[in-house]
Amino acid sequence: MELFYTSNIDGNQAVLDAIESTHCMKVLRHRVGDTVSVMDGKGTLLRCRIAEYRKDGTLLEIIGREENFGAHNYDLEMAVAPTKNIERYEWFLEKATEIGIDTVVPVICSRSERKSIKTDRCGKLLLSAAKQSLKGRIPLLRECCRVEDYIRECDKDRIRLIAYCGSVEGAEKSSLRQVLESCSGGNVKISIMIGPEGDFSSQEAELALKCGFRIIHLGKSRLRTETAAVVACCSVYNMLG
Amino acid sequence: MELFYTSNIDGNQAVLDAIESTHCMKVLRHRVGDTVSVMDGKGTLLRCRIAEYRKDGTLLEIIGREENFGAHNYDLEMAVAPTKNIERYEWFLEKATEIGIDTVVPVICSRSERKSIKTDRCGKLLLSAAKQSLKGRIPLLRECCRVEDYIRECDKDRIRLIAYCGSVEGAEKSSLRQVLESCSGGNVKISIMIGPEGDFSSQEAELALKCGFRIIHLGKSRLRTETAAVVACCSVYNMLG
Repeated sequence: MELFYTSNIDGNQAVLDAIESTHCMKVLRHRVGDTVSVMDGKGTLLRCRIAEYRKDGTLLEIIGREENFGAHNYDLEMAVAPTKNIERYEWFLEKATEIGIDTVVPVICSRSERKSIKTDRCGKLLLSAAKQSLKGRIPLLRECCRVEDYIRECDKDRIRLIAYCGSVEGAEKSSLRQVLESCSGGNVKISIMIGPEGDFSSQEAELALKCGFRIIHLGKSRLRTETAAVVACCSVYNMLG
Repeated sequence: MELFYTSNIDGNQAVLDAIESTHCMKVLRHRVGDTVSVMDGKGTLLRCRIAEYRKDGTLLEIIGREENFGAHNYDLEMAVAPTKNIERYEWFLEKATEIGIDTVVPVICSRSERKSIKTDRCGKLLLSAAKQSLKGRIPLLRECCRVEDYIRECDKDRIRLIAYCGSVEGAEKSSLRQVLESCSGGNVKISIMIGPEGDFSSQEAELALKCGFRIIHLGKSRLRTETAAVVACCSVYNMLG
């Protein structure tokens, strides 16, 4: 099943942009009258009839809608420090999208060697991963933010976790699995923080704890930042999905 | 902690090869008399004193041993069809090693677009991933084999699973999680087959079933071959690790 994308939707009409039009009409050689599947990036799958081909935008007639296409039973926000090697972060974005994630927040920590990411490039990557894995909704990529700001502003209604390799005196540390086993019912809202190559600083971990985050570990293995992030996504997918 | 590797061990002496010697003495500037950590690739961590530096091989005196260094509580064999894009397969090898795996078998299926892999290159990759993630044992990479041979020859004492997207009439399909929840005690031996881009053929799935494999699914998401393989490794790590 091939999936196209457009955000240009008005009533029962949708328009594919120039790139999607070329892919649809030239590469895949669709014709006017053909039926195609289009995602709106917000969770809806549209069944469309190709009404008119224009280079700058193919006109589609919407003949059916499927809400929550490819949706999962939880709301997962991953706040992950960008990796020094950006390819590793991009790999995390692709895999997390395939597995099932809702929001990515690149958090900049005191030990972060990388302080920014190319949001456009990462956005394109999330779109193609969502199309490839048949998800109607493209994960939201937030702007980079300082980890202290994220910790303070993270929604208090969410289960908020920080994967910290160190320890904070007097604070207990559970495995992510233990935390997830105690989650009941559907659509659990969960936020997980993954630190940079050098881990979070003790100050960052203490602040998180003070603000209501729980400290977790991801098992015995020593995992790279991007691997830890994917392992956390897998655990949520495995336990709550 | 930096970890060196050698298979050249005799009694209380070990020798680093030329490449490891250069890395140890020139790059990291160790000196004779320093203590270093060395893995034998079979699960043992050696504490060694540098006795003598030679370009072609640094001589080490073994002063301590730690068995089962970085070991996990299960035995996981992943029989995964090589991906068309070999980088995706190499990525699976690296991540699976970090998470915790014992054996990789590249299985060639009727729908495999790639029929071989560079075993040397993949072996080097497994070694560096094991060193990086502080695992004393390098996962065993078996030679490519036909999927039918693997299915017939896979050890009957193992929990044998095939992740098949299709269905076989009359055969039930459980989630990997359900299967793992029913696993009791430590050191569970488990083999999981992951098919190529086009999935296993129905004949391959039927043969596996006939030979005692159980059909599993990995949840609702549509996963690429290498993502499915890593998700399966994560589930085992999460549930049995």
